[in-house]
Amino acid sequence: MKSKKDITETKYFTFAKPPEQMLLESGKKLGPITIAYETYGTLNKDKSNAILVTHALTGDAHAAGFHEGDKKPGWWNEMIGPGKAFDTEKYYVICSNVIGGCKGSTGPLSINPETGKHYGLDFPLITIEDMVKAQKHLVNRLGIKKLLSVSGGSMGGMQVLQWIALFPDNVISAIPIATALKHSPQQIALNEVGRQAIISDPKWMKGKYYSFGQPEKGLAIARMLGHITYMSNESMEKKFSRNLKNDSFNFSFIPEFEVEGYLHYKGNNFVKRFDANSYLYITKAIDYFDLSNPNKIINGDKIDIKFMVISFTSDWLYPPSQSRQLVRVLKQKGIDVSYCEINSKYGHDAFLIEFDEQTNLIKNFLKKVIHERKDK
Amino acid sequence: MKSKKDITETKYFTFAKPPEQMLLESGKKLGPITIAYETYGTLNKDKSNAILVTHALTGDAHAAGFHEGDKKPGWWNEMIGPGKAFDTEKYYVICSNVIGGCKGSTGPLSINPETGKHYGLDFPLITIEDMVKAQKHLVNRLGIKKLLSVSGGSMGGMQVLQWIALFPDNVISAIPIATALKHSPQQIALNEVGRQAIISDPKWMKGKYYSFGQPEKGLAIARMLGHITYMSNESMEKKFSRNLKNDSFNFSFIPEFEVEGYLHYKGNNFVKRFDANSYLYITKAIDYFDLSNPNKIINGDKIDIKFMVISFTSDWLYPPSQSRQLVRVLKQKGIDVSYCEINSKYGHDAFLIEFDEQTNLIKNFLKKVIHERKDK
Repeated sequence: MKSKKDITETKYFTFAKPPEQMLLESGKKLGPITIAYETYGTLNKDKSNAILVTHALTGDAHAAGFHEGDKKPGWWNEMIGPGKAFDTEKYYVICSNVIGGCKGSTGPLSINPETGKHYGLDFPLITIEDMVKAQKHLVNRLGIKKLLSVSGGSMGGMQVLQWIALFPDNVISAIPIATALKHSPQQIALNEVGRQAIISDPKWMKGKYYSFGQPEKGLAIARMLGHITYMSNESMEKKFSRNLKNDSFNFSFIPEFEVEGYLHYKGNNFVKRFDANSYLYITKAIDYFDLSNPNKIINGDKIDIKFMVISFTSDWLYPPSQSRQLVRVLKQKGIDVSYCEINSKYGHDAFLIEFDEQTNLIKNFLKKVIHERKDK
Repeated sequence: MKSKKDITETKYFTFAKPPEQMLLESGKKLGPITIAYETYGTLNKDKSNAILVTHALTGDAHAAGFHEGDKKPGWWNEMIGPGKAFDTEKYYVICSNVIGGCKGSTGPLSINPETGKHYGLDFPLITIEDMVKAQKHLVNRLGIKKLLSVSGGSMGGMQVLQWIALFPDNVISAIPIATALKHSPQQIALNEVGRQAIISDPKWMKGKYYSFGQPEKGLAIARMLGHITYMSNESMEKKFSRNLKNDSFNFSFIPEFEVEGYLHYKGNNFVKRFDANSYLYITKAIDYFDLSNPNKIINGDKIDIKFMVISFTSDWLYPPSQSRQLVRVLKQKGIDVSYCEINSKYGHDAFLIEFDEQTNLIKNFLKKVIHERKDK
């Protein structure tokens, strides 16, 4: 049974109220902006033990513990808590939902105060830079000048890199996991297929579907494709092989293989919990992401940030080659970086599955970061 | 300028007229069956120089030369012709459109003689075995007892393997290219996403769209996804990188990157030339394909067929590991097989691009096949 202290809840912080709206990378302005966030552990007196955890495409602020009445914990619960990788007996862990999202932070699903209706496509396109700038407002609000670390996988890793590019003086260490310095054309192409599945669904109605229900079919197809890229060939082989749902082929277009049934199930579940417009906005933000110019990510000479880069051998969505490229760029800029390629069969999903090795690496890394800090 | 002799034309052969219908693997019967086919070169007197070339998912019988008035030649024109890999001065080359297709052979687009309407979903589901059994009728009709070789890439390679499994006494040599002994769960999953894009398009209307026009959006999405799997990461990087269609981001959901524009172009062009129902039927046939049991592909002890297996290093749809698996199975059954992994950056498309090395390999292989035959 879970104890009382495992119960966590989402909090909200609103800023950029007109006329103080936030300027976005596109040149447009957005405000008011609400950020949904959770915190775990206790901020120490000198506010030096804060770690920001950043989520992936469909994640949210609920990274750890259980919401009242929930059976499932937050998305990185195995990594955040007493004695865990991000040890809440030592650290104050923050996780916030990105802007553009649909889990409490301002996004296309939110009510546009100018019209009193859901933003839909009136929501301006956002970038990873915009997401991180909004997060910075939250970190400021919590009174934290320097984050001990920023860590996240996939799009979370892009936010980590963007933090370094934008706010190098406010971060002590960085742990980007299963991520890339830029989205490649193949990665953009896969996102575009997902977007077109949504946009082509007549129920999308140019984003004005909120009174009528989601473009469920399109969104489910986007998720099915996503799921294929999150798993590896090997993990699919192990989980499904060519197993059939029934004893033999039924020779129809109803899913016959277990792998098909699984994708349908995942797609259909996803539409219950995620907003189709948010899927469009966030995948665009990922596609725009490009810090491959070494002077963009490391903007200055005296940057004293320790990095640990983690990738997974069977990840073909953000393959180890992209992490090695990141390491190369950091090394060339004289940054202190260690690199770990974890041997895993779980593909991109590994950052949400391979807890033991990640825990070990991150614990030791954070210990070293604190130790070196005390020496100074 | 192309000479007169380059002009080729599609011919038609009809069999299995009721009550002599063909029994399908599903247990259903199909007939009459028309096979669209082309031939190049001249059949010699003892009918010993015939080579069957088999096409991929969206291919057709028009493998070589130009149709009257056309600017583009057949899909494997660089490989078939005088002095080419399949040298039409030496060999009689046959290519036929698979059943289930939409390029002249009987498929869901054909008129169902029982109703006078397009088959649509009344067309029975077919398998690679059914395709090959239908081809065998054509080969019989042409009076050929033994094919000197059967060769094709991708689904064409599956047909090659199926020929060996079904008709080992009627084939002297086999050249499966960029193919697999079975469709893996990942490959099935990718096909299912394409199918769902079509099926979810309201214009699909359970396959009864023929009077109203194609489910264009769904079919285009299926093709876009297909295209990503035909190219490699490297070839996409080289062709598109992160180049924009305009000078800067327009921050909208209109395609901004060149790779997106290219996929839209390919998708939109595809719907003009391919039937959505055929896409469903043929991808299902591919998913059903499984000759991974060594006793299925080599059914007997005294099989005297020479194999050359070809794969391409950057092919991630049918990766070299699947070709090596095929070679392993053949070797275990005592089959004479040589294996060539061609170094290419073009991904799965390489079998339609890397002509020089394929030509060299195939020419030498066929020379050796004929030489050994004369020794006997």
